[in-house]
Amino acid sequence: MKLSDLGEFGLIDRIKNLVASDSGRILVGIDDDAAAVQISPDNILLATTDALIEGVHFDLSYFNFYQLGWRALAANLSDIAAMGGQPLYALVSVGLPTHLEVANALDFYRGMKALGDQFQTAIVGGDTTQSPDRVFISITVLGQAQAERLLRRSGAQIGDAVFVTGDLGGSVAGLCALKSPDHKLRAKYPAAIEKHLLPRPRVHEAQFVVENFPIHAMIDISDGLASEVHHICRLSKVGALVYEEKIPIAAETRAVADHFKEAPLEYALYGGEDFELLFTAPGEASDELPKKFYEKFGLPCTNIGVIENQTVRLRKSDGATEELSSLGYDHFRKLKAKPR
Amino acid sequence: MKLSDLGEFGLIDRIKNLVASDSGRILVGIDDDAAAVQISPDNILLATTDALIEGVHFDLSYFNFYQLGWRALAANLSDIAAMGGQPLYALVSVGLPTHLEVANALDFYRGMKALGDQFQTAIVGGDTTQSPDRVFISITVLGQAQAERLLRRSGAQIGDAVFVTGDLGGSVAGLCALKSPDHKLRAKYPAAIEKHLLPRPRVHEAQFVVENFPIHAMIDISDGLASEVHHICRLSKVGALVYEEKIPIAAETRAVADHFKEAPLEYALYGGEDFELLFTAPGEASDELPKKFYEKFGLPCTNIGVIENQTVRLRKSDGATEELSSLGYDHFRKLKAKPR
Repeated sequence: MKLSDLGEFGLIDRIKNLVASDSGRILVGIDDDAAAVQISPDNILLATTDALIEGVHFDLSYFNFYQLGWRALAANLSDIAAMGGQPLYALVSVGLPTHLEVANALDFYRGMKALGDQFQTAIVGGDTTQSPDRVFISITVLGQAQAERLLRRSGAQIGDAVFVTGDLGGSVAGLCALKSPDHKLRAKYPAAIEKHLLPRPRVHEAQFVVENFPIHAMIDISDGLASEVHHICRLSKVGALVYEEKIPIAAETRAVADHFKEAPLEYALYGGEDFELLFTAPGEASDELPKKFYEKFGLPCTNIGVIENQTVRLRKSDGATEELSSLGYDHFRKLKAKPR
Repeated sequence: MKLSDLGEFGLIDRIKNLVASDSGRILVGIDDDAAAVQISPDNILLATTDALIEGVHFDLSYFNFYQLGWRALAANLSDIAAMGGQPLYALVSVGLPTHLEVANALDFYRGMKALGDQFQTAIVGGDTTQSPDRVFISITVLGQAQAERLLRRSGAQIGDAVFVTGDLGGSVAGLCALKSPDHKLRAKYPAAIEKHLLPRPRVHEAQFVVENFPIHAMIDISDGLASEVHHICRLSKVGALVYEEKIPIAAETRAVADHFKEAPLEYALYGGEDFELLFTAPGEASDELPKKFYEKFGLPCTNIGVIENQTVRLRKSDGATEELSSLGYDHFRKLKAKPR
């Protein structure tokens, strides 16, 4: 069997079984945004890794090296945020072609440093090596969380309200605009483009909600809302009902979708790389949490659904409900993954 | 200026300046085998990353996936060892072609697990992604060290004896045999080939010497003895005299060099990837340390030189001394690096 037949999530399942460890210090292993290990009775070390390959995850025709560094680190900071943690240190492994300008290589580090500085996250190590053709990047971020505030994907409870920060689908809208031969779109849709090139990991936002509300489960949205709702439900052994009309989609995202004659809802459900937070909390929080969140950050936090006891469903605007497919980007199939 | 003009070490210097942080918690940054950060008054977290790219660092015509996993993790364990630490957790980032057999991908993890289990090091996370052509691997290993036993490259003192574990040049001898079109060499030089494909990181050996002797500086030999002596001397602001006839070279390594009409000393000085330890301790330890080390591990530990106050020199077998060039593998120049 080839990897293309098994798919990324199938491979991860097999790896998880193969490398399973019975160490009691490992609180969270391969199945979450970041690994979590106990380093003292009160403190937990978080560690997460994210890889980007030129031509698979990004294209240098629309990413400059500063943006690339920022974007690469952002994905890792977002993973630490989604565990309720504080990112602290980054290790940066990068393969670069020998013909690359030194100035470009340094811009890559400048982009990482600019974002890292916003979250007191220092680059403490890494590896630089020659890559014959493609740029590849693998960043590991270490962080810390208090034991009682560690957020897993697996804690959602029936009756929980489901929340999402910011708006969804903007990153893929930006990507569509960037990939278009019509370069005028780049000036026309600046917010979507910035969302794709310079995403803002919700580190402070995650810390705020975990400090002020009884959050049950959290994940960051890297593969699209549908896939992430499925991850939370599968690991929490619950279902969910998501209200289509509540899913936050920015006007600019809708405009890009209109331009390309696509459905903005598809961008939000399956687009990915928005790096917003998806989390659940007891239904009683559904009024106060979005209000306090907006007061603090000037950013919406929207109650988009409820945790139920069965499957993952979408309630359409016309009132009908349907099964919500977990379609999301699967790295080995090179196409939308099958529902699982 | 291109990366090929600046070279890997030049780039690292610039990155180091660019990402410098004034956090007092960062005890060791980019300039050592692993980063070291204070996590409690007594405890230090170590973190190291090493990347391997198919066609640059290895070739699948002579590495199978089990060996590749083992080899990739070994480099990181060796880095933790060289800091005097205990490796604990690994995060594995890997880019694989979609046409790869699932069995090969799992063998890669089996090789890592087999080695990791020897040192109580668990794989706790990572990222799997599609790579269009080459396999790339980036592993991060986290470890722990006691504050008073942290070993840096920068602690060598004038008068210290210089020690090296095991023997040198075996890995590159194995590589030469593996690359030869004469496949009979693979059966003829099994020890050298094993040294290249399945290197043994000296984790227990490093812990033993740091627990029993006042070690001043340590580094692992990944780029060749000459380059590593220069690293220690540059960071310790000292020089060294290395005795050519003391450099431990196995009979099989000499036989491979003879076969290819090359100098075994070149293999030892510039070959790299032996993953032995190079360290310094007060001269008084020069008799007892190798004796106790051999009693414990059945492995030689050889006093190959002395720390001095000037340059790095080699005393040839005929008694003449000459400057020892720091030639070593430089990833961006694709050739031996200039002395620095």
